[in-house]
Amino acid sequence: MDSIKYTLSENQMPRFWYNIQADLPEPVPSVLHPGTLEPITVADLEPLFPTQLISQEVSQERWIEIPDEVQSIYRQWRPTPLYRARRLEKALDTPAKIYYKYEGVSPAGSHKPNTAIPQAYYNKLAGVKRLTTETGAGQWGSSLSLAGAFFGLEIVVFMVKVSYHQKPYRRAFMEAYGARVVASPSNETEAGRSILKKYPDSTGSLGIAIGEAVEVAIADDQTKYALGSVLNHVLLHQTVIGQETLAQLELTGDYPDIIIGCTGGGSNFAGIAFPFLGAKLRGEQNNVKFVAVEPAACPTLTKGKYAYDFGDTAHLTPLVKMHTLGSSFVPQGFHAGGLRYHGMAPLLSHIVELGMIECRAETQLGCFAAGLTFARAEGILPAPEANHAVKAAIDEALRCKEEGVSQTILFNLCGHGHFDMQAYMDYQAGLLRDTEYSAEELEMALSGLPVSR
Amino acid sequence: MDSIKYTLSENQMPRFWYNIQADLPEPVPSVLHPGTLEPITVADLEPLFPTQLISQEVSQERWIEIPDEVQSIYRQWRPTPLYRARRLEKALDTPAKIYYKYEGVSPAGSHKPNTAIPQAYYNKLAGVKRLTTETGAGQWGSSLSLAGAFFGLEIVVFMVKVSYHQKPYRRAFMEAYGARVVASPSNETEAGRSILKKYPDSTGSLGIAIGEAVEVAIADDQTKYALGSVLNHVLLHQTVIGQETLAQLELTGDYPDIIIGCTGGGSNFAGIAFPFLGAKLRGEQNNVKFVAVEPAACPTLTKGKYAYDFGDTAHLTPLVKMHTLGSSFVPQGFHAGGLRYHGMAPLLSHIVELGMIECRAETQLGCFAAGLTFARAEGILPAPEANHAVKAAIDEALRCKEEGVSQTILFNLCGHGHFDMQAYMDYQAGLLRDTEYSAEELEMALSGLPVSR
Repeated sequence: MDSIKYTLSENQMPRFWYNIQADLPEPVPSVLHPGTLEPITVADLEPLFPTQLISQEVSQERWIEIPDEVQSIYRQWRPTPLYRARRLEKALDTPAKIYYKYEGVSPAGSHKPNTAIPQAYYNKLAGVKRLTTETGAGQWGSSLSLAGAFFGLEIVVFMVKVSYHQKPYRRAFMEAYGARVVASPSNETEAGRSILKKYPDSTGSLGIAIGEAVEVAIADDQTKYALGSVLNHVLLHQTVIGQETLAQLELTGDYPDIIIGCTGGGSNFAGIAFPFLGAKLRGEQNNVKFVAVEPAACPTLTKGKYAYDFGDTAHLTPLVKMHTLGSSFVPQGFHAGGLRYHGMAPLLSHIVELGMIECRAETQLGCFAAGLTFARAEGILPAPEANHAVKAAIDEALRCKEEGVSQTILFNLCGHGHFDMQAYMDYQAGLLRDTEYSAEELEMALSGLPVSR
Repeated sequence: MDSIKYTLSENQMPRFWYNIQADLPEPVPSVLHPGTLEPITVADLEPLFPTQLISQEVSQERWIEIPDEVQSIYRQWRPTPLYRARRLEKALDTPAKIYYKYEGVSPAGSHKPNTAIPQAYYNKLAGVKRLTTETGAGQWGSSLSLAGAFFGLEIVVFMVKVSYHQKPYRRAFMEAYGARVVASPSNETEAGRSILKKYPDSTGSLGIAIGEAVEVAIADDQTKYALGSVLNHVLLHQTVIGQETLAQLELTGDYPDIIIGCTGGGSNFAGIAFPFLGAKLRGEQNNVKFVAVEPAACPTLTKGKYAYDFGDTAHLTPLVKMHTLGSSFVPQGFHAGGLRYHGMAPLLSHIVELGMIECRAETQLGCFAAGLTFARAEGILPAPEANHAVKAAIDEALRCKEEGVSQTILFNLCGHGHFDMQAYMDYQAGLLRDTEYSAEELEMALSGLPVSR
């Protein structure tokens, strides 16, 4: 019994992004101007983003059309395959059915190009010449570099310093696409210099790198900023994942009982889950359980506070209400760089607060073990980030076995691990450790939260 | 004008491998027993291969059925996409049409699983417990490791020592699938020990690693040997590539004027070319030019001799008539490890001798430049091996531009470069050099050729 691939033809690809804001019982809290603490205006965001992305950020329309130019590039690797993981089911000896959507087939190896392409497109349309961004593990930086190459945009990536040094090949991958990669904190920005002055040995964080990228974008008219997760428009673009999956599942006759995604900023989880959650909110489906899995070493959803906070350490971004560990929180250097963010997408945080999603934290040792089990059964070596979803899927499948029930489990395999081999080597050599934080450590980072309404 | 993907449905996948031996005007010269210099018998090969693979090795049947169990696994990533590279055409401003078949979508990242899967399958059927093999760049070792995980076979990979140290991540990838990887020359075999005694600092070669793998297989009843290229049955399995391409080209209305593949042992070139060459041999198509591209630093086809030689340095293999640089030839450590083999597939060598294929040698600097041009236009970063095909395709497209003709160019993009980032880093840093050999150096290696009929 081999695993089965479910494909769609290109004309079955979604033509619209799905905006869950249209179906929410309560609207997501406003984004606030950090100076006035009043809701921000479109004009406040214009130094950072082109107007079409700002419109998408605040839109309440349920369906937003995907431009032909974006569709045309999506088609290079989309629709991505949905697999029934029958070899994994057999290896686990479970009565559960396990499905996974595989986003690693994109040229950059993850789901991130789903939003990098439209972001580059709208910026190009608006006459922008250069985009700045941050990257942790490098999946987002690679994807924006790819998009920059396609649209002829100059790309500058502030890469978290620990990753910059740990993952030179990820950097080389971005440079192969023509991007410029800068280790963050850097001397190129005020934000970077002020951190280096206080902490000359700082290994950086996504919060610091965002601050640097934002600062450069604000300072130059022809430069804008691009973010790889967290924001509403980013989550919006990722909904092609879940929409395709809905169509693919129709070919199987199954509907998921459990939907799982890993969460760093929240975009890959939202990508697979929101179209299903929308169906549930509209009363078309019930009884689906949604599971967000985060690293125990950066437990934003499970141990953070739901509060207004900055997206960056330099406090240049607007204030958003989200689950946060505090914008000064610098997570330890565990091997899932894409999940090392102090905050969580406001939209996802809001939905968690509405009680619609179960949140779990997993340690890295358990996640790597799950990833190897998956690789040997299914042949695909997942990214360390994706291993968090794999771990939860295997746990649910083993629970089904214990309970003797055949539930249907769906998870998003958001990327491959080809650029994460050092992590696998360290794991196999027994060099990795699990770290958790004491209540005091977490409290201290949260004590710096800004005051808001 | 974006690039276009042409897909097939699973029921359009080839159900047979194509055996070009059925269509050759003259049979390929016999393989000889190294002791008797007589044609080898099936019994001579049985310590190395299961009988079904030996039958395929000598078969003259045109079509050989692909077992359901192999088809079922092929479907995980096959049919692979064919792309019309319109962004590359635009970047080159050429009137030529450029198509490429992309084999990097396999879980191991290259075309090699096309033969690793059936080889593991037939060995499993025959009750074999363990397979030994060699690997250079690691694409083949990864693919056999994957196949071993799928079929529950123990895999031992002798990895050329220079690659073992240069590419620890490729090794980690094989280990993630559960394989054991040994740096070659090793102390585990007589073949390895004798090399180490003479040359303690030997960085190894494919010829040495093959000798080690063969020795281990011969010594144990439950162990057999698997080869990733060169042999007839390996080339046979790769013909799914060209057959799919034929069906995909029907969707385009185009037929290639030029078909290009890189050549190390010859299997990816054969995979794309043989189904088209068969059509030409049967008189169904004419005027197609076939171009085999090899590295100038291992110029087997362009500077080797067509003669009987051993496949390995230890002289444990049978004698095959092929283009060879001599089995003692150790190519310099350039960055396309998959092409560093002293010989060439006997079947391909024979066809070259029949005058059906144009052969070219390209230097690595030109190939890396071509690879980056391709990556920025098409989004996929090719393996250094595949860059040889990319280089020739770009050259042909530029020739078309100069001549003002719109020819159709097809090439095989046999794998991605995710495990080759050090090479790209070195190239971008200006650290790579081109090396060629003097006539004397080449002559010396050839002087050791065995005597045969």
